[in-house]
Amino acid sequence: MHTDPATGLVAALDIGGTKIAGALVDGEGRIRVRAQRPTPAREDGEAVMAAVEAVLADLADSPLWASAGTVGIGSAGPVDASRGTVSPVNVPGWRAYPLVERVRRATAGRPVTLVGDGVAMTAAEHWLGAARGHANALCLVVSTGVGGGLVLDGRVRPGPTGNAGHIGHVPVDLDGEPCACGGRGCVERIASGPHLARRALDNGWRPGPDGDVSAAAVAAAAHAGDPVALASFERAAQALAAGIAATAALVEIDIAVVGGGVAGAGEVLFAPLRRSLGAYATLSFVRNLTVVPAVTGTDAGLLGAAAAAMHAGPEATG
Amino acid sequence: MHTDPATGLVAALDIGGTKIAGALVDGEGRIRVRAQRPTPAREDGEAVMAAVEAVLADLADSPLWASAGTVGIGSAGPVDASRGTVSPVNVPGWRAYPLVERVRRATAGRPVTLVGDGVAMTAAEHWLGAARGHANALCLVVSTGVGGGLVLDGRVRPGPTGNAGHIGHVPVDLDGEPCACGGRGCVERIASGPHLARRALDNGWRPGPDGDVSAAAVAAAAHAGDPVALASFERAAQALAAGIAATAALVEIDIAVVGGGVAGAGEVLFAPLRRSLGAYATLSFVRNLTVVPAVTGTDAGLLGAAAAAMHAGPEATG
Repeated sequence: MHTDPATGLVAALDIGGTKIAGALVDGEGRIRVRAQRPTPAREDGEAVMAAVEAVLADLADSPLWASAGTVGIGSAGPVDASRGTVSPVNVPGWRAYPLVERVRRATAGRPVTLVGDGVAMTAAEHWLGAARGHANALCLVVSTGVGGGLVLDGRVRPGPTGNAGHIGHVPVDLDGEPCACGGRGCVERIASGPHLARRALDNGWRPGPDGDVSAAAVAAAAHAGDPVALASFERAAQALAAGIAATAALVEIDIAVVGGGVAGAGEVLFAPLRRSLGAYATLSFVRNLTVVPAVTGTDAGLLGAAAAAMHAGPEATG
Repeated sequence: MHTDPATGLVAALDIGGTKIAGALVDGEGRIRVRAQRPTPAREDGEAVMAAVEAVLADLADSPLWASAGTVGIGSAGPVDASRGTVSPVNVPGWRAYPLVERVRRATAGRPVTLVGDGVAMTAAEHWLGAARGHANALCLVVSTGVGGGLVLDGRVRPGPTGNAGHIGHVPVDLDGEPCACGGRGCVERIASGPHLARRALDNGWRPGPDGDVSAAAVAAAAHAGDPVALASFERAAQALAAGIAATAALVEIDIAVVGGGVAGAGEVLFAPLRRSLGAYATLSFVRNLTVVPAVTGTDAGLLGAAAAAMHAGPEATG
């Protein structure tokens, strides 16, 4: 770490399509100061940047700000860490937006590290969560989309552009349905919350009187024993298992950590996931792979952004 | 490198189900001395080891032997580099066989590095072939089976047990046919030479008067315009493309190098492979991925075993 765990702080930003969260995080993973603004996602790029600057200004109001020597950003993707730019799908005002340079300017020239949000969650789980102590791990976020990140040989490996571990767009059904990414049969196309819910509806599941057709409503129905809801979770689990097995065959991991809203469904997802993984991950070196829930929760993005900044060498900062 | 490129030599072993090849390789990738024995694959483990020892004895007869300070082994898999053992599918006499310890004893205690044959081919292509100069690459061997290896951040990454890059057993068809590994819809189940040929036969292709039903015969028919033969190559290419796209999404690679007998078919494989890759690898950070043929040929195993030994730190040798 480049930061003294007792006293050094990092300024962390977690940038999504709904909110921009900021924090000052200490070397033991405690959030000491928080700030937040809604993301003005439909406005132009400068309006979004103004919200980021407002979050940073709130953090700078703290007497602890002077101790924050570096800045870590976890952003909705795609990101390009090699260029310091972001192009979040849900923030159309930002396309190849030079976020690293802008944040550096807004923070009196502090070094800035940028990673994708899947990599940030992975950094958080490796630092403080379920992947702690594991040299080789895949962490997944199963939510509106499916993201992820990799720990290899004891370190988070963001990849050259900060997008590695992008398990949502691993094709597991080569003749499958077209995906929003332009590909076909991607994990996300089968396992994300909206696709999970759509599949349940297509197969005859009907929401309750509240009309809730979210994945959480399908999860509630699955817990109550609804066979169509259960089947939709099983299909999502099968796709996730194939993607995890692919990762294990390619890079040798010993644990997969699954977080995000869909993972909140618990055993209706994890039980078929473990079963399916046993069917796909059969080689000697992948057979002992375990799957566990993530533990860092809604602060994963902030904690992971902080971890990325703490672990970044000078070459990884802009 | 731990070896002086001008004078240092490495003893390399390439162990397969058909032959055991050995060589003394210099720091510039030249093979200075060769030796070879058939693999007595149906005999017991000690008989196979005796063939390895005979190859090493032939190498030791060379006056250059004294300059060979380390030994590199590329072996048919599965291997377990962390334990120094091998269990090649086609050599039933070796199961968790302590090859590293036995080779060390047979070479007066020299340090021994073990990798799987896919990793060895990758090391060769990164050192001397088509992956040279690439920081992030996947190399594949498409033959009787489908193997591979990864270069990440400028170095071959064998993974904890020496099996990383195992693209043959990446599931790309989650509802597909059962694979010999126990999984389902694996790349190898669709793209290997025997499966490619079987699919052509199943769909009505018939061999010539010589009765040759190998993938090479299907390739000849494809070059002559046979639509069933062409379709079988296209399906193999589609599975390889999905596996390469999966790898790119997971670890960010900028080149895929394809070798092995099936790759020898040339454009009847590579043209649909490039086309299919364009359909699966659509994200910004994987879109510029190129696919090229391997160049190190039949010596890839020996050269890669040598490269693995030259690049291994003390922690990677047994």
